[in-house]
Amino acid sequence: MSFPSNPKIAIIGAGAIGCYYGARLAQQGHSVHFLMRSDFDHVSKHGLQIRSVDGDFVLPEVHVHKDTHSIGPCDLVIVAIKTTANDALLSLLPPLLHEQTAILTLQNGLGNEALLASNFGDDRVLGGLCFVCINRLSEGVIDHQAQGLITIGEWKKGTPDRIEKIQTLFKESRISCQIAENLMQARWKKLVWNIPFNGLSIAAGSLTTTEILQNPSLKQLTLSLMREVISAANHLGCSLPDSLAASMIESTENMMPYKTSSLLDYDAGKEVEVEAIWGEPYRTAKAAGYPMPQVEMLYHLLRHQTQK
Amino acid sequence: MSFPSNPKIAIIGAGAIGCYYGARLAQQGHSVHFLMRSDFDHVSKHGLQIRSVDGDFVLPEVHVHKDTHSIGPCDLVIVAIKTTANDALLSLLPPLLHEQTAILTLQNGLGNEALLASNFGDDRVLGGLCFVCINRLSEGVIDHQAQGLITIGEWKKGTPDRIEKIQTLFKESRISCQIAENLMQARWKKLVWNIPFNGLSIAAGSLTTTEILQNPSLKQLTLSLMREVISAANHLGCSLPDSLAASMIESTENMMPYKTSSLLDYDAGKEVEVEAIWGEPYRTAKAAGYPMPQVEMLYHLLRHQTQK
Repeated sequence: MSFPSNPKIAIIGAGAIGCYYGARLAQQGHSVHFLMRSDFDHVSKHGLQIRSVDGDFVLPEVHVHKDTHSIGPCDLVIVAIKTTANDALLSLLPPLLHEQTAILTLQNGLGNEALLASNFGDDRVLGGLCFVCINRLSEGVIDHQAQGLITIGEWKKGTPDRIEKIQTLFKESRISCQIAENLMQARWKKLVWNIPFNGLSIAAGSLTTTEILQNPSLKQLTLSLMREVISAANHLGCSLPDSLAASMIESTENMMPYKTSSLLDYDAGKEVEVEAIWGEPYRTAKAAGYPMPQVEMLYHLLRHQTQK
Repeated sequence: MSFPSNPKIAIIGAGAIGCYYGARLAQQGHSVHFLMRSDFDHVSKHGLQIRSVDGDFVLPEVHVHKDTHSIGPCDLVIVAIKTTANDALLSLLPPLLHEQTAILTLQNGLGNEALLASNFGDDRVLGGLCFVCINRLSEGVIDHQAQGLITIGEWKKGTPDRIEKIQTLFKESRISCQIAENLMQARWKKLVWNIPFNGLSIAAGSLTTTEILQNPSLKQLTLSLMREVISAANHLGCSLPDSLAASMIESTENMMPYKTSSLLDYDAGKEVEVEAIWGEPYRTAKAAGYPMPQVEMLYHLLRHQTQK
């Protein structure tokens, strides 16, 4: 059985990512089922309202569910909860799975595909990286400010043509989508940016990307952390060029001052994804015989700081 | 000419260390000349008042000077200014030197002996490490709370018997004093404690030693930093056992909660000795081909944090 062209889709996680991409798919007429807790009543009554740089739209009626049993088996499960809540997936997902259900995690950092694969089977799992500026303004109201690309990749081999069909599904729903030949390489490449900037934005005291790069010590440290991540990625077989560090710093210097998602979480008193962004990468590299002393140190500092 | 038994002594730096040890030497009847700036008027009129666990005492009359020209050549110059003001030594010291003048730095961290040696000659220089809990309460008033040991060592070969005579001088003045066979080994050993505890006490957000060790992440990081310092010291030929890390952590766990001197400086808005305690050690090791990535990272974080 190949991946259907009109799949039944579940969105697990009603934050900005889940709501925005789910709404794009529903807008195109797909059968999209949202799992919601706190936003259930509001979205049941009022639907979803998307403010987007690509044009605002409203979905007055969406399928919302309080549990996954009422959704039932789907063809595609999109996981968009915070990684800090990953334990919940073990009980949330089984009611959604038939024999061929694909699970696509759009979560941050490392370790999410491995968790899903070890519990639900290698062949079901895909990963996606979202390059998007997006915020949940209030219940059912999402503000899409810039970009929107998803880069997707198979965790292992997958079903023939599945990933191309998912790419088509996204593209037809006005979601830019690229296929990564090597999903782990794409994840590590994103970590080259996220590890220093998301980390130092909190650890060095609530700083924007611009403030980090304007301080010579923190800029030096950003470069040094990036090099450590690149070296580890190369050691793990995810080839990344050394020049990536300098080019990422340069392009970030040309960006507007930017508050990282981790800093926004921290400032809002929400959980920071410390394990996915810093813990898993250093542990993965260490287990492969490649220590990442600066990432490990940042992890310990952040774990302490975000526990308070 | 050997080191005189009744030397003329200059004390450069009128903080707690300079005043306390200088007062002990003066109490014993030695010719001790204090360089003072802000405290000059007060101490000229009222002398020094020492509150000490070993018994309070007052020196109603002390030799205070506003510049080193008025002190003139001495046999022993004790340097006790903050390392952040080291540049001033190049102009302060020359008026104090005759051909045989010994210079003893009681300053923190690494690099002070090398600075003095390169400007005033290898053979003049000795270093000392102070193991003492001491505070300057107000102008001319020092609070000596605990301990007091000075460990001294020659920077290079020195004059025959000089160090033993200085040891005797201290001991007769009720200052516990040991001779270190290897001064740099003694400095690195102290850094094994100072680098993690002084550093994390600031970088992790105003914490006592107890608070650092009660947090599993910070305790792990303390251990990891200690190991990095021990390895670097060994690489530099200053043999330190690996077991030192665990034993220092254990003894610190048995101490009362302790605010490091760097944190006290930071909280008081004073300069923190970032170069001497973190900068010089990582640069020294790096120059010898032994990178210290975690110490370097702590240096950059502290440099940023203490610049604000």
